[in-house]
Amino acid sequence: MGALSYSQFDDTIVALATPQGIGAIAVVRLSGPQAISIANAVFHGKDLDTVDSHTIHFGTIREGKEIIDEVLMSVFIAPRSFTKENVVEISCHGSSYIIKRIINLVVGKGARLAKPGEFTKRAFLNGQFDLAQAEAVADVISSDSEAAHQAAMSQMRGGFSKDIKQLREQLIHFASMIELELDFGEEDVEFADRHDLAKLVNDLKVIINQLIKSFDLGNVIKNGVPTVIAGKPNAGKSTLLNALLKEEKAIVSDIAGTTRDSIEDEINIEGVAFRFIDTAGIRETTDVIEALGVERTHSKMKEASLILYLFDLVNDNITDINKEINKLENLGKPFIPIGNKIDKAPAGLVAQLKEDDRFIFISASQQQYLEELKDKILDQVNLKNIRSSDTIVTNARHFESLLKTSQALDDVLTGIGSNVTGDFLALDIRQALHHLGEITGEVTNDDLLANIFSKFCIGK
Amino acid sequence: MGALSYSQFDDTIVALATPQGIGAIAVVRLSGPQAISIANAVFHGKDLDTVDSHTIHFGTIREGKEIIDEVLMSVFIAPRSFTKENVVEISCHGSSYIIKRIINLVVGKGARLAKPGEFTKRAFLNGQFDLAQAEAVADVISSDSEAAHQAAMSQMRGGFSKDIKQLREQLIHFASMIELELDFGEEDVEFADRHDLAKLVNDLKVIINQLIKSFDLGNVIKNGVPTVIAGKPNAGKSTLLNALLKEEKAIVSDIAGTTRDSIEDEINIEGVAFRFIDTAGIRETTDVIEALGVERTHSKMKEASLILYLFDLVNDNITDINKEINKLENLGKPFIPIGNKIDKAPAGLVAQLKEDDRFIFISASQQQYLEELKDKILDQVNLKNIRSSDTIVTNARHFESLLKTSQALDDVLTGIGSNVTGDFLALDIRQALHHLGEITGEVTNDDLLANIFSKFCIGK
Repeated sequence: MGALSYSQFDDTIVALATPQGIGAIAVVRLSGPQAISIANAVFHGKDLDTVDSHTIHFGTIREGKEIIDEVLMSVFIAPRSFTKENVVEISCHGSSYIIKRIINLVVGKGARLAKPGEFTKRAFLNGQFDLAQAEAVADVISSDSEAAHQAAMSQMRGGFSKDIKQLREQLIHFASMIELELDFGEEDVEFADRHDLAKLVNDLKVIINQLIKSFDLGNVIKNGVPTVIAGKPNAGKSTLLNALLKEEKAIVSDIAGTTRDSIEDEINIEGVAFRFIDTAGIRETTDVIEALGVERTHSKMKEASLILYLFDLVNDNITDINKEINKLENLGKPFIPIGNKIDKAPAGLVAQLKEDDRFIFISASQQQYLEELKDKILDQVNLKNIRSSDTIVTNARHFESLLKTSQALDDVLTGIGSNVTGDFLALDIRQALHHLGEITGEVTNDDLLANIFSKFCIGK
Repeated sequence: MGALSYSQFDDTIVALATPQGIGAIAVVRLSGPQAISIANAVFHGKDLDTVDSHTIHFGTIREGKEIIDEVLMSVFIAPRSFTKENVVEISCHGSSYIIKRIINLVVGKGARLAKPGEFTKRAFLNGQFDLAQAEAVADVISSDSEAAHQAAMSQMRGGFSKDIKQLREQLIHFASMIELELDFGEEDVEFADRHDLAKLVNDLKVIINQLIKSFDLGNVIKNGVPTVIAGKPNAGKSTLLNALLKEEKAIVSDIAGTTRDSIEDEINIEGVAFRFIDTAGIRETTDVIEALGVERTHSKMKEASLILYLFDLVNDNITDINKEINKLENLGKPFIPIGNKIDKAPAGLVAQLKEDDRFIFISASQQQYLEELKDKILDQVNLKNIRSSDTIVTNARHFESLLKTSQALDDVLTGIGSNVTGDFLALDIRQALHHLGEITGEVTNDDLLANIFSKFCIGK
């Protein structure tokens, strides 16, 4: 069997690859050198040892004479599989009982239960893709907006990795040159032109700083924009939230079988998720803005990137409104002042408020002008460039490594400026390479990998 | 394309076939004459129109230039599929967002959303299996005990259908003979010997009555035994329930990724499920047995097939206990009297109670003698024959049809006894055949099918 030559692992892992719960079918996945022989030992219908890769075989899984299920076996022969190992996917009926029996059975034949993310980890360690791509697999699964999905898909397919690799290659070239100088010891040669090096490092810094800067956006794309709806009691906060969510749910649940649980407090605008933070405590208070600042809601508010602040156009007067606007400005958070109940508002007040072009006017109860509000929300978080083809960093670990790379490059520049010797420059360049390598997994360690893959689901 | 020749349907259906929720992978299933061409229209990587049946192809799903996901496409060419139609299973990343996009995309290309059970309904209508087998597909999925699983698996694989078909064939033979007599009109011939017919009908009735009788067991196997734990406050009811459930959960959750939600109030003994009915109302009352009989808990209690009644050996005395036993007997439900707190019980009381051999003694808090209790529970519901190879009727619809068949056969026997003419006999035999045919779907109608398949999950 050729499996061992493609994989560094000699054991075979098994896990349920589809979600728990009742469904028509479930898929149990085996990966490892013995995947096919173990599957063959419990399968009746065909000798799986003799079949081609990427073929499907109908038959039964049996324990002794007892038929556990009628199944389809999908066979992938190393290295033509996700993990580059032999893989068998058992497509069985979607019953917890059957899944349990099948997993027990193959464990009895020598497989062991996979840890979270272990299939993807093997794919990475067997060279299927790099670490940034492996991490993107989890992001692809958890993406629930268009923007997050696009960023994750691009990263999974190696877009980001390609950028990082190009940066590394250029640095590696200079590092080699400088290390060559060191070999010549005291002969005082200079293979690596310091001026060229400085120019290269500056160019790299521009690119890396762009990536670093993209994380603000990337974070928002990946995790959504934490948003608070605030305003005095009866300003219409719950009505607005419900109106926004209702539209959202109608969009999301138009396809049977794809309802999302996580949608509860989230709306998507142009592919970007806005998560509404629960501010139940704030909503009950009369002096809302003060509450926004007080200690007990501090942690919630710290998360918020945007405040939608509702004014009651029927019951509020211009003096009070201006006072509240002033207080809001002092909070130092981006906010949108919203005049609610526009359908019943006195014309004079509206005219006065319109002088402040930040203001937007809606009727939450009549669901009027919600589209305009959404446009304004999108403007506020500066997501206009979202559809550009620029690489966007969405992963906090990558962000950290890029920051460290940037610092190391600063050290290189400082070194060049003060004419330090080649060995010090080489050290700083290696440091920059080290941090870039952390992103794609050229540089790694067991703890880091354990930490990354423990966040995956079992079966991935 | 050969698809149309195997299927009576000219549209193509699509649904998510795996459970909702986050998982490593999800499977979207297409079935119908256009399944392959629709899949081909959104797939990049290979021309699926040219591939063999039962092969798997890696590539991307795209909407215009946007990559929705990297997927594996499993292609099944009619009639070699579950539905006997062309089938494509799209194995994508387990993200609700991606699933939604893919389903939207194929709907845009001409597929329509499948109704619950529609894949199985097509498989039935295209002659893949009969109706009893189709119904068993849902039972296989929902089975959560060994006994239920075995009964459903046997039914899905046609065990029960074979029995019914044999019965029908024998009846059809006689029906034809009698109808032949009718063709000869007034010539007074008798092709079907009345004595032989009566013997056959009696033989059939024996078999059918066995099947009818098996439904008591079948119902328990399929739905579990509804069980109540009762007793005065502080007799240890919750402690016992928790002790039983704790063991159960330890068994169930030993395999990562297979935890069942439904386990909350259920234990499995020798492959049979015992469901504990919530009797919170009863548990708070002092006069428990009276509460067991009162109107407001009547409906719950009507469901109960077994009462586990706890006595507190430390605080109860023999007089009270005997009084309660008497009341329990008057309820007319099977019950097991349980002496709890045996670890601290006075020896004299225990000796007295032991004279009643229905009594069993445990310590719920020390988890002592729970195995003995389980044996007793199993005895009570008469499940000893569960592992026999006899066919067991688990489906209420089949039970009803068998009852009606039995009645029609009684009418045949009465007719023979009173020498009715052949046309009346033929009518009764046809009636029996009709009801047998309802089980396997030889006789059916749209309402019945709609009713049966609406209980399936979407994607099956």
